[in-house]
Amino acid sequence: MTDFGEDDFFVASLKGVILNINPSARIVDITHRVPSFNLEAASFVLFASFSYFPPQTIFLVVVDPGVGSARKILLAKTKNYYFISPDNGVLTLALEEEKVEQLRRVTNDKYFLPDQSRTFEGRDRMAPTAAWLSRGISCEEFGPELTSYKKLRAEKPQIRGSEIFGRVLYEDKFGNLITNIPVDLLGRLQDKTGKGRFVLSVKGHEISSFVQSYSSVKKGELLFLAGSAGTVEIAAGQESAAVKLKVKVGDEVRIKVKDR
Amino acid sequence: MTDFGEDDFFVASLKGVILNINPSARIVDITHRVPSFNLEAASFVLFASFSYFPPQTIFLVVVDPGVGSARKILLAKTKNYYFISPDNGVLTLALEEEKVEQLRRVTNDKYFLPDQSRTFEGRDRMAPTAAWLSRGISCEEFGPELTSYKKLRAEKPQIRGSEIFGRVLYEDKFGNLITNIPVDLLGRLQDKTGKGRFVLSVKGHEISSFVQSYSSVKKGELLFLAGSAGTVEIAAGQESAAVKLKVKVGDEVRIKVKDR
Amino acid sequence: MTDFGEDDFFVASLKGVILNINPSARIVDITHRVPSFNLEAASFVLFASFSYFPPQTIFLVVVDPGVGSARKILLAKTKNYYFISPDNGVLTLALEEEKVEQLRRVTNDKYFLPDQSRTFEGRDRMAPTAAWLSRGISCEEFGPELTSYKKLRAEKPQIRGSEIFGRVLYEDKFGNLITNIPVDLLGRLQDKTGKGRFVLSVKGHEISSFVQSYSSVKKGELLFLAGSAGTVEIAAGQESAAVKLKVKVGDEVRIKVKDR
Repeated sequence: MTDFGEDDFFVASLKGVILNINPSARIVDITHRVPSFNLEAASFVLFASFSYFPPQTIFLVVVDPGVGSARKILLAKTKNYYFISPDNGVLTLALEEEKVEQLRRVTNDKYFLPDQSRTFEGRDRMAPTAAWLSRGISCEEFGPELTSYKKLRAEKPQIRGSEIFGRVLYEDKFGNLITNIPVDLLGRLQDKTGKGRFVLSVKGHEISSFVQSYSSVKKGELLFLAGSAGTVEIAAGQESAAVKLKVKVGDEVRIKVKDR
Repeated sequence: MTDFGEDDFFVASLKGVILNINPSARIVDITHRVPSFNLEAASFVLFASFSYFPPQTIFLVVVDPGVGSARKILLAKTKNYYFISPDNGVLTLALEEEKVEQLRRVTNDKYFLPDQSRTFEGRDRMAPTAAWLSRGISCEEFGPELTSYKKLRAEKPQIRGSEIFGRVLYEDKFGNLITNIPVDLLGRLQDKTGKGRFVLSVKGHEISSFVQSYSSVKKGELLFLAGSAGTVEIAAGQESAAVKLKVKVGDEVRIKVKDR
Repeated sequence: MTDFGEDDFFVASLKGVILNINPSARIVDITHRVPSFNLEAASFVLFASFSYFPPQTIFLVVVDPGVGSARKILLAKTKNYYFISPDNGVLTLALEEEKVEQLRRVTNDKYFLPDQSRTFEGRDRMAPTAAWLSRGISCEEFGPELTSYKKLRAEKPQIRGSEIFGRVLYEDKFGNLITNIPVDLLGRLQDKTGKGRFVLSVKGHEISSFVQSYSSVKKGELLFLAGSAGTVEIAAGQESAAVKLKVKVGDEVRIKVKDR
């Protein structure tokens, strides 16, 4: 996963490097279209997809606004997976879900390309590290242990009084607005405030169709539902909720229970 | 093939699910850039590419405006291939070319992911079905037999009097306009109307350069030819015919024979 | 690598053809988003990525404004790699880096698809040739030897007086402007003009921050550095230098040494 786009030579260079070291590596693209330097979006896309991959998958995540600076390169081993990325917070959401067993700072230039640029460490340092790791080199080899890694300040949704306060975390290709409010939280709100109908408020709009699937409403009608990432999602029947509502990533979302 | 785009976590989730079930599956992208919910475009792109793939390929086609609704999930076994998709007509053009041997409604949740969302059946039901099928589970296992599948109302080109009437079926990246008029039909028109020069009319424009290849004309000159999908295609030398002609998918195309 | 884009059936058709002939072929995309018919951009992207791939890689490069015309199909065997493309100059920069051992004109229709269109030779001639080559058919089999191949007129950077004159060769996704000035040339300029500070001029702007990495400057500040393709690159801290400077591919770039 990168923010390199697909127009240039960047992604291909990474794949070439990996296959040169491990010709039998299986390479699967998550996406290379993360908005440039957007660590929050990258963190979310990784979070929403990584757990579907087979155990022992190595996730190479190169969204790296600080390339060439003193920021570390991180190798994280969890119960199920490996992650390699700049230590800039991009792993925040994924590592919250996983039991982290080992953190390393990648420094061993024995596993880097011989000629290293200061502008493309994804190709020259991170990709070869991932490839050697896939060949069975143990984590210890790549550099010294770390006790912590950088985390994005990820504001958690909260129940205050009779309302849940959360935020829009991601806008997908269809214009669906994925929030940071876990669907489970709705049950906790009900326990607290009594049974009733959920109503979602965002940017002055009130949406009351809390449904099971996108096709439960007419074309263009606003709805919210339990999204495929496990959180509340705002959508519109076969249209873009983002366009209809003029809502953006970061905007506040509130959910309350209305008496029947 | 999907309409998921490549920005989000959707395609990667499908691939993760497949590789988790069958680590040796070969996954090839047809495209994920079908215009959202556009079944006609999806049907055409599949039609134009599927027959180049090796026998026994499993085509997983997730363009699914009705996700979560009562629409069925379809498994079609043909003489050469397997197809899995929502039963919404997206297979129309491909299945017209193939001898269909078996149709099944995919219902067996033994082969679905344990936690199923109502918003992402591509990931939770169709991808795992494709993966298990690739591991050798037989079609019978996935659900009851069907006697028919949904078809798009695909208007056929017609010869009326001395003219062929067809439509623009697809606009490709280069702005070439692919029609639904099989090249063979031109011969039948000639048999009927006598020898002469073909002339194509579309949106008030008359094009008389019926040539062998794009490079047969000067830059910007309009032409029509036998396209790579086997039908008549309207193009312009190194430019976009769609832009030049202001023609869109669905617009009528007529071809007649002009006396020499 | 192609200029086919990813929306249509073109790339998938090529992959199907290859896998049908050689089911164990490993296919890696370089990019399919070369601007339509842009041989200079294609030549650069190939140049910047090919050497990272494993020895014996077959590069299939289909950017083909002259499809269907008399232009030849070229097979080049170098010390490390194979290249198949229209003979239109698209291999210029890559082949300058490699020791060419054999040039062939691909003509043997035994290795083409049986039904050949005149509009899609990538699918019908070049892809099957690449696939058969990957199965071990020797170069000699594909057609007669050639003594030369078409080259793009690639203007070399020059030192004139106390200045290097070069051009912008490529604009990447981040808006970085990659020039054709090898970083080594800066040392030769210093040898000639004496020690001092490098200053780069482009379209009336003078840039004096010659730094090691993008993160050496503040957000938005202009810089130039040794880019990942081995040439001088103009950039701006986390912004697009192309947008800031209104500079395009082809624009002149000058570098001189200023006395301290």
